[in-house]
Amino acid sequence: MDHALFQYLLRLGDTTLILSHRLSELTGHGPALEEDLAMTNVALDLLGQSRRWLTLAGEVEGRSRDEDQLAYLRDAPEFRNYLLVERPNGHYGDIIARQFLFDVWHYFLLKELCSSSDERVAAIAGKSLKEVGYHVRRSSDIIVRLGDGTAESHARMQEAVDDAWRFAGELFADDEIVAAMADRRAAPRHSQLWPAWFEHVRSTLQEATLRAPDADGANHPAYRGGTSGRHTEALGYILAEMQHLQRAYPGAAW
Amino acid sequence: MDHALFQYLLRLGDTTLILSHRLSELTGHGPALEEDLAMTNVALDLLGQSRRWLTLAGEVEGRSRDEDQLAYLRDAPEFRNYLLVERPNGHYGDIIARQFLFDVWHYFLLKELCSSSDERVAAIAGKSLKEVGYHVRRSSDIIVRLGDGTAESHARMQEAVDDAWRFAGELFADDEIVAAMADRRAAPRHSQLWPAWFEHVRSTLQEATLRAPDADGANHPAYRGGTSGRHTEALGYILAEMQHLQRAYPGAAW
Repeated sequence: MDHALFQYLLRLGDTTLILSHRLSELTGHGPALEEDLAMTNVALDLLGQSRRWLTLAGEVEGRSRDEDQLAYLRDAPEFRNYLLVERPNGHYGDIIARQFLFDVWHYFLLKELCSSSDERVAAIAGKSLKEVGYHVRRSSDIIVRLGDGTAESHARMQEAVDDAWRFAGELFADDEIVAAMADRRAAPRHSQLWPAWFEHVRSTLQEATLRAPDADGANHPAYRGGTSGRHTEALGYILAEMQHLQRAYPGAAW
Repeated sequence: MDHALFQYLLRLGDTTLILSHRLSELTGHGPALEEDLAMTNVALDLLGQSRRWLTLAGEVEGRSRDEDQLAYLRDAPEFRNYLLVERPNGHYGDIIARQFLFDVWHYFLLKELCSSSDERVAAIAGKSLKEVGYHVRRSSDIIVRLGDGTAESHARMQEAVDDAWRFAGELFADDEIVAAMADRRAAPRHSQLWPAWFEHVRSTLQEATLRAPDADGANHPAYRGGTSGRHTEALGYILAEMQHLQRAYPGAAW
């Protein structure tokens, strides 16, 4: 089994799965139907992408686990998502800050993965990129609207960005899995994504009259660990809800 | 204000809104990613349709209420959805039975509304019909798969159909609102939808090796009242969850 590729695919599949779940918790909760539709659309895109990554992960693993078994029958320490996406929804500003920091990273990552030496990875990245381009535009627009809005929206948005920022560092870590993938040109070194990410984030926050936290603020090791299975307790709650049906009726396709 | 048209639009908008909410409660709960994607897609279609009906309802009412105010700031007795769609999700068979009986009715209704004398109604119906055609095919397929599956799935599916059936009658009632709409050729008499509905339902159930309950079973007045604002307690719980944000932050677009 190709260990690095399998682990890397789990990171992509789990990260999109968990964020999709977080967003779908919000579906139908308003306060505006248009916003609800847009958020549900993003959740749906991410779920579709997750399915493709996990299907491929199952093939690479070669132990006949399909995407459903990977999604619904693993425990928290086996999940490989970045911690940022398992953060609780909080208020609307928190949701948007998490989404914005993630979307920009996701976009630049997928752009690089489109030229992966692994054609299967390149194909999935290519399919996902257009959707994620839309996600970036949307979350960037909302950040500007809220940051440059009322005094209250500005304050809450700044607080939300500062809070989510601590979890951004993990997205750019080059551990042994990323390094192994990069060595064979199957993925970029994630540290190389930082300059483009930071530039887009910084200029968008500036337009939103928000302050970009400094790079060091994203570098604390306490806010990392998801990609090696060390999660916050929030993930346990997500999985309990997500896996309830499958565990209540094992293999259930009655 | 055109009272009959306003009430009729609320019925359409509320019915699609509430069913969309019920389905979105299931998003990300598995047990299969593909099924999750399909269900979320249906929820999203219905939410989009609801938005169009409620926007038009707000215009017809002429009191400057937009679709969000109609969706998030009315209490249960002001909701006009059919009771069938507010039924709790129950088990998977219940979800599918509710969806199947509704989808078939929804399809034949929209087909008639496409030639409504009110062009705005006809336009929305036309946009929705293709989506709903897909919904019918999907729920019909699943009914057959589950009904003609294992002994357990057959038994549970039959029970679910019998249970949901009681609420089907209301869909075909010609009260004064439907009559007023039909008199001006803005909508069909709903009783006229029954034969085509019953034929599709009956033949699908037959293919699924399930027994179609008899017509009388759908005629009990105890299982009606949604379209005049007499709801089951289930609606209160849905609205509490759906309207929480808007009521916590009135007018909230911070």
